[in-house]
Amino acid sequence: MELVCLPRLPRVAVCGGTHGNELSGVYLVRELLRVQRETSEKEKEEEDKKSMSVLTVLANPKAMQRCSRYIDTDLNRCFTHAILNSPLSDKPPYEMVRSRDLNALLGPKGSCEAVDLVCDLHNTTANMGLCFISYSDCDWICLHIFRHLQRQMPEISMRYIHFDVSNRESYSLDSIGKHGFAIEIGPQPHGVVRSNIYTTMKSGVQHMLDWVHFFNSGTTFEGGLVEVFTMVKNIDYPRDCVTCSITAAIHPKLQDRDFCLLHPGDPMFQTFSGETLRYKGKEALYPFFINECAYYEKGIALSLARKKHVMIPTVRVQTEQEEQANKLGFASEEEE
Amino acid sequence: MELVCLPRLPRVAVCGGTHGNELSGVYLVRELLRVQRETSEKEKEEEDKKSMSVLTVLANPKAMQRCSRYIDTDLNRCFTHAILNSPLSDKPPYEMVRSRDLNALLGPKGSCEAVDLVCDLHNTTANMGLCFISYSDCDWICLHIFRHLQRQMPEISMRYIHFDVSNRESYSLDSIGKHGFAIEIGPQPHGVVRSNIYTTMKSGVQHMLDWVHFFNSGTTFEGGLVEVFTMVKNIDYPRDCVTCSITAAIHPKLQDRDFCLLHPGDPMFQTFSGETLRYKGKEALYPFFINECAYYEKGIALSLARKKHVMIPTVRVQTEQEEQANKLGFASEEEE
Repeated sequence: MELVCLPRLPRVAVCGGTHGNELSGVYLVRELLRVQRETSEKEKEEEDKKSMSVLTVLANPKAMQRCSRYIDTDLNRCFTHAILNSPLSDKPPYEMVRSRDLNALLGPKGSCEAVDLVCDLHNTTANMGLCFISYSDCDWICLHIFRHLQRQMPEISMRYIHFDVSNRESYSLDSIGKHGFAIEIGPQPHGVVRSNIYTTMKSGVQHMLDWVHFFNSGTTFEGGLVEVFTMVKNIDYPRDCVTCSITAAIHPKLQDRDFCLLHPGDPMFQTFSGETLRYKGKEALYPFFINECAYYEKGIALSLARKKHVMIPTVRVQTEQEEQANKLGFASEEEE
Repeated sequence: MELVCLPRLPRVAVCGGTHGNELSGVYLVRELLRVQRETSEKEKEEEDKKSMSVLTVLANPKAMQRCSRYIDTDLNRCFTHAILNSPLSDKPPYEMVRSRDLNALLGPKGSCEAVDLVCDLHNTTANMGLCFISYSDCDWICLHIFRHLQRQMPEISMRYIHFDVSNRESYSLDSIGKHGFAIEIGPQPHGVVRSNIYTTMKSGVQHMLDWVHFFNSGTTFEGGLVEVFTMVKNIDYPRDCVTCSITAAIHPKLQDRDFCLLHPGDPMFQTFSGETLRYKGKEALYPFFINECAYYEKGIALSLARKKHVMIPTVRVQTEQEEQANKLGFASEEEE
């Protein structure tokens, strides 16, 4: 098995409230902040020995206050290279300003000052269990953390979703770290916190932080196969051609069956008059984000993915010497 | 068994979108409107013979457009005698204006011009199945319709909830009809439509209209016992005394267990740090509206009810002679 030695991860950000009505992340980050406040100086010294610092961030406080997804525009689409670097208008949307603030705090995106890992916490109304969502299917850090959570929380159904988008085009908060992923957990209605979902998220974040600590401390993590779902396309609801209003809901035989293979001809929608509409695609694919509340306005009734297996190498942290050598290499690459 | 003869119900209103993000009612009323539009004149004549007219009303179109519960204030709290009759301010909240429009259309509340029956369609994030919510435990029309639905839809768990509030104090849209109730179905996230919930609501409304038609046509409905849950009190979330932010979620052992008897000492909340808080009441009661999204801002984590059985009499519609005699009686009562 190949061994890959990777740089240490001294700065980790845990973010919640990027969507102000996805409450597990909001209350979990608040809880982490409370614990940090109440931790004594002595305990903090102990923590520091843990080889990393954890930044806890409430990403969209105004939207949280209103318990809405956003104020002016979806913050989690504001982190592309283009949006972060275009001139601001006179009265910029709140989230355009906020994305720059967050990029200054946790980035700048693509720079070596960026935090090492961003974990952004989300909820969905879809029955997706716990999902990692990442722009890479070869970020060994993200994939190893995913596999660690799978092993530590065997009772939770867990998937790794890959959006095949370049770093410049990547649009979400987690894209501003050197490594990053969203943790998406459902089903939970937006504006509601359910204990079981909250507790799952809390365990997931704890195991993620544990993994980073183990990694920074020199633990070697064995490689192996990881199942990855690569996003292929979105499917919209059937709509009235005049009013654009939807004319059907997800079919009861598809509802809640995220990640169950959808075959050509399978029921997909049920119109409000009771007719069944079927999946017309030619390839069997895996549906996810089935009936996600926030995606009605985006024109997405569900997304479809192809499943593959990715062989991930054994990883361990670089020694100081390796890191030094790597930095030199990185510098000379930059100069090219 | 006692026989009660009641006036005909020639005008029935079916309302949806009173809360703009409770989508089953929104799409069901739109579907009923579409069917009405597409019904030919000849079919309409057939319908007219059905002994009643059905008004279909989208109650809060602006909130529906935004897919939010309301614009300025909760429309479904705007139908008290006091609010409907107080002078309007210069810039009145949208829902204050809208409630007067609806009262003019379907009421006036308490008058003999009011429609005979208002059925207002709602959704909840709580696992409540199908509930009738009414201000009366002795409105034989509402109770008979409820029992009809129970018999016609035995696969659906169904309850009758009674809010013991006077007609003047009653605040919801359904209170402006001569008879009225809300149909509340869950669990469904707000802003989402689920086929199973939509279909249940559609069947419920159809059976309700069938019953009114049978009743108006002279069918006698046998009396009997009906289980009624009378609202006793609301319980708020534990909150931080400085920020008022909630510090706990519904306990996983209580979540989704609406209408399962809650005993003193049973787990009620789980704090965000993991502690269990228990029900401190002295009386075992039936919880409902457990973790309803819209009630976070109202300070309601759940409501508690006492169960009883109500003996409802056999009913049939009054003959024309009986109706005439009754009208005279009603008139002389009014003159008193």
